[in-house]
Amino acid sequence: MSANSAFAKLDALGKRLEAIEHAQSMLGVDEAVMMPTGGGEKRAEAMGTLAGMYHEMATSPEVGDWLGDAEAEPLDAMQARAVAEFRRVYTNMTCLSSEFVSRQVNVRIRSEQLWRQLRPTGDWKAFLPAFEGVVEILREEAALRADVLGLTPYDALMEQYDPGNRAADIEPVFADLKRFLKGFIPEAIARQTEKLARRPLKPFNAPFPIERQKALGLAMMEAVGFDFDHGRLDVSHHPFCGGVPTDVRMTTRYVEAEFISSLMGILHETGHGLYEQGLPKEWSHWPVGKARGMTIHESQSLFVEKQIARSAEFWEWAMPHVRTHLGDGALAGWDLEDVLAQVHLIEPGLIRVDADEATYPLHVILRFELEQDLVGGKLAPRDVPEAWDAKMREYLGLSTIDNMKDGPMQDVHWPSGAIGYFPSYTLGAITAAQLWATIERENPNARDDMRHGRFTGLNDWRRDHIWSEASQYPTPELMVRATGEKLNARHFQDHLQRRYLGA
Amino acid sequence: MSANSAFAKLDALGKRLEAIEHAQSMLGVDEAVMMPTGGGEKRAEAMGTLAGMYHEMATSPEVGDWLGDAEAEPLDAMQARAVAEFRRVYTNMTCLSSEFVSRQVNVRIRSEQLWRQLRPTGDWKAFLPAFEGVVEILREEAALRADVLGLTPYDALMEQYDPGNRAADIEPVFADLKRFLKGFIPEAIARQTEKLARRPLKPFNAPFPIERQKALGLAMMEAVGFDFDHGRLDVSHHPFCGGVPTDVRMTTRYVEAEFISSLMGILHETGHGLYEQGLPKEWSHWPVGKARGMTIHESQSLFVEKQIARSAEFWEWAMPHVRTHLGDGALAGWDLEDVLAQVHLIEPGLIRVDADEATYPLHVILRFELEQDLVGGKLAPRDVPEAWDAKMREYLGLSTIDNMKDGPMQDVHWPSGAIGYFPSYTLGAITAAQLWATIERENPNARDDMRHGRFTGLNDWRRDHIWSEASQYPTPELMVRATGEKLNARHFQDHLQRRYLGA
Repeated sequence: MSANSAFAKLDALGKRLEAIEHAQSMLGVDEAVMMPTGGGEKRAEAMGTLAGMYHEMATSPEVGDWLGDAEAEPLDAMQARAVAEFRRVYTNMTCLSSEFVSRQVNVRIRSEQLWRQLRPTGDWKAFLPAFEGVVEILREEAALRADVLGLTPYDALMEQYDPGNRAADIEPVFADLKRFLKGFIPEAIARQTEKLARRPLKPFNAPFPIERQKALGLAMMEAVGFDFDHGRLDVSHHPFCGGVPTDVRMTTRYVEAEFISSLMGILHETGHGLYEQGLPKEWSHWPVGKARGMTIHESQSLFVEKQIARSAEFWEWAMPHVRTHLGDGALAGWDLEDVLAQVHLIEPGLIRVDADEATYPLHVILRFELEQDLVGGKLAPRDVPEAWDAKMREYLGLSTIDNMKDGPMQDVHWPSGAIGYFPSYTLGAITAAQLWATIERENPNARDDMRHGRFTGLNDWRRDHIWSEASQYPTPELMVRATGEKLNARHFQDHLQRRYLGA
Repeated sequence: MSANSAFAKLDALGKRLEAIEHAQSMLGVDEAVMMPTGGGEKRAEAMGTLAGMYHEMATSPEVGDWLGDAEAEPLDAMQARAVAEFRRVYTNMTCLSSEFVSRQVNVRIRSEQLWRQLRPTGDWKAFLPAFEGVVEILREEAALRADVLGLTPYDALMEQYDPGNRAADIEPVFADLKRFLKGFIPEAIARQTEKLARRPLKPFNAPFPIERQKALGLAMMEAVGFDFDHGRLDVSHHPFCGGVPTDVRMTTRYVEAEFISSLMGILHETGHGLYEQGLPKEWSHWPVGKARGMTIHESQSLFVEKQIARSAEFWEWAMPHVRTHLGDGALAGWDLEDVLAQVHLIEPGLIRVDADEATYPLHVILRFELEQDLVGGKLAPRDVPEAWDAKMREYLGLSTIDNMKDGPMQDVHWPSGAIGYFPSYTLGAITAAQLWATIERENPNARDDMRHGRFTGLNDWRRDHIWSEASQYPTPELMVRATGEKLNARHFQDHLQRRYLGA
């Protein structure tokens, strides 16, 4: 490839965009971990300016010319995929006019700010006008995107988060899962009630000093493969995994009363971190070298948290390490069963982010169904509370009609204009189970490896089949390449039955 | 000022440049405080790309057009100064061709890397060829700058660090100071020897736990006016003050064996931090709103460290606070005199950065004299060791001829191509003393205020006369406006005589 080729121009642009992304990521981490409050105003201004510069550079018409020229250049297969993915990102970034984007940003910011202010009291009536504004402009956005992409409006929104995901493919998977959970959850809860009657939950041997919890977290991160030469763990109010692939910044938060939430949170974020650390370095400045969307990212965090760190085999191995780091008293009187009772607790509740892995999909399916109707115009924003309540009663037997705060006002997504994002959480959980099933099929000793703290094989498989593939393929194609079949909820159902019903 | 004016275009450019500077500063802080080693390579790449983008934006020919147009627009006095300072910065940035700059960057980087490698063994012979290359290209740079700026070559180099500083003005000030120190240092040391014979230095009541030292440092920072809503204190290998005016990031390092070095270091950096926090917010994105060069910046750190924090009055107030934070045992057996013996210790030595305030200027004057000869061609790089040794023997009675590591190879400045920077340190010390003298003339109770921990008046004066003035005036003019006279070494001499000879 010559230095004057269109491909080389895209490569050079990629380096510049990567430098701005690097700054944006690290400034974001700093803001959450280090920044004093008074630094916020100027930080927001700098971030806004950098975002504007990024958008200007990435959407400039000459980029479109370079893409057209590069598509006509002789490219090897990887280069061709790199140009195709650059084209996809370019199309998604340029399909809205800058006039539209700036109008939308204002509507979204006002709505999100209002939501933050009104959520504590759940004042839906005061929030509704802003929410109506957000939905209106989202419908407009969906139509504009749909037109350019040749997709349905809802699929055009999902396409931003998960290239290739289509509602028509997801609906039967979710329908199947919903049917399954309808029977499964009562059965699992009955089984759990019976167990807890025989052996009640043990109170924690608190307090667990934060410095010790941190040492335990770091040891577990290292054991499952996190590379501390290219990342670190800090504390922030909302845990996240940020930074860049060569320098992954994870955060957690601790409470002294128990050690499991923080540890599971750390291992969840470690899953995200491993994915980022495993991306192909030589393509880091091309869209093709970046992580493949929200479903796959969430599948990687859930793989580590749910498939590995909440398994009985993991805890067989981990319990001595817990004692080493938290002290012998930490698990005094606790057997493996007592830990598992904690990490496998099923409790239907109102709040999605607090939900266990069995009830979580129902929260997501509820939102998936409602947001399609919102975008399609079948549901008016003012009718959301009733629709939400009806589905909550049907799926989880709980009513939210008098509790907007813990009902449709609980999540930031809709107030901030993110529709089409929610499915990723459950698609990620299904994907994680499907990846596990494939690994176990290929290596029947996989569980035994975990029991002995051997995670290298699990990581090597994910590195080969997911991490190093980055954004070369749309999400569904990546799935088929990795597992030999389309997304299939059966693996997730098998996982739940095995874990909760011993089936 | 209309939105289409050239002034408005410069204002918009300033916002973009400020966003990149913000990212550069914070990434620099993160690199020193947080970044794991493996993140370094990609970080350096991102920083290099951002620097290139900054340079491209700041030196674009259209900026020259806007400056010309803005100069012809109706401007108020402040706007006119803002445009003039923007012009000065633009001229200094554009007077070297990009071909020259990239050639120079390579020479400098190679030389600095070689220096880092060879300094531990003081291998001058191996370093000399690289140093000769740096000096050669520095002479070329000085000539190019001199030509554009209409200054002598050395002044043209100094102009980058301290606008308006001229060797012809500095020479008599330094000559006067050198004459003074020749008599003063032996006298002060004799006095000190006599005192220490009567009352020897007390050993420290070590160890001082780092958490407690940190609490003491934070309390002292707050007492002298640091705003923790717009800044914080962390740890790094080399202490610095970085960040942005709305979010000042200071660092220190601690040893458990004693608490004074770290505390003085913290207060030194706090002086830098107060200056940044006191800059005028509304001009932060214009060159005129930024700190005025190295001399004034150093004067602010030295004001807090030398004028305030090493004074007897400060320690009268501070000693109870030391006990509060470090514990009663920390100063057991120590009187005010014992602390002062530590913070006023004079010890001629080889290393500039370890020097006390009395001998420090001689290290600087030596470099100032030699670097003028290096730039002017009167001194060849290969003859530096002899010239250095001769001056060390003359000024401080110490020889470095067999010790290149602690002689001409001790500082990073020359190896990295920074000539014209050294004078700022001592000009800063002289400035700090002159500011103090002015304050005390205007407020005869200034020392008494310190004795009672009242620093507000001292800060208000510096805010009005230095901080809020930012880069409106060249360094010498700022001095005259603040103190009513040109830079005058007499105030620094009075300060030394008062402190060390009780005169």
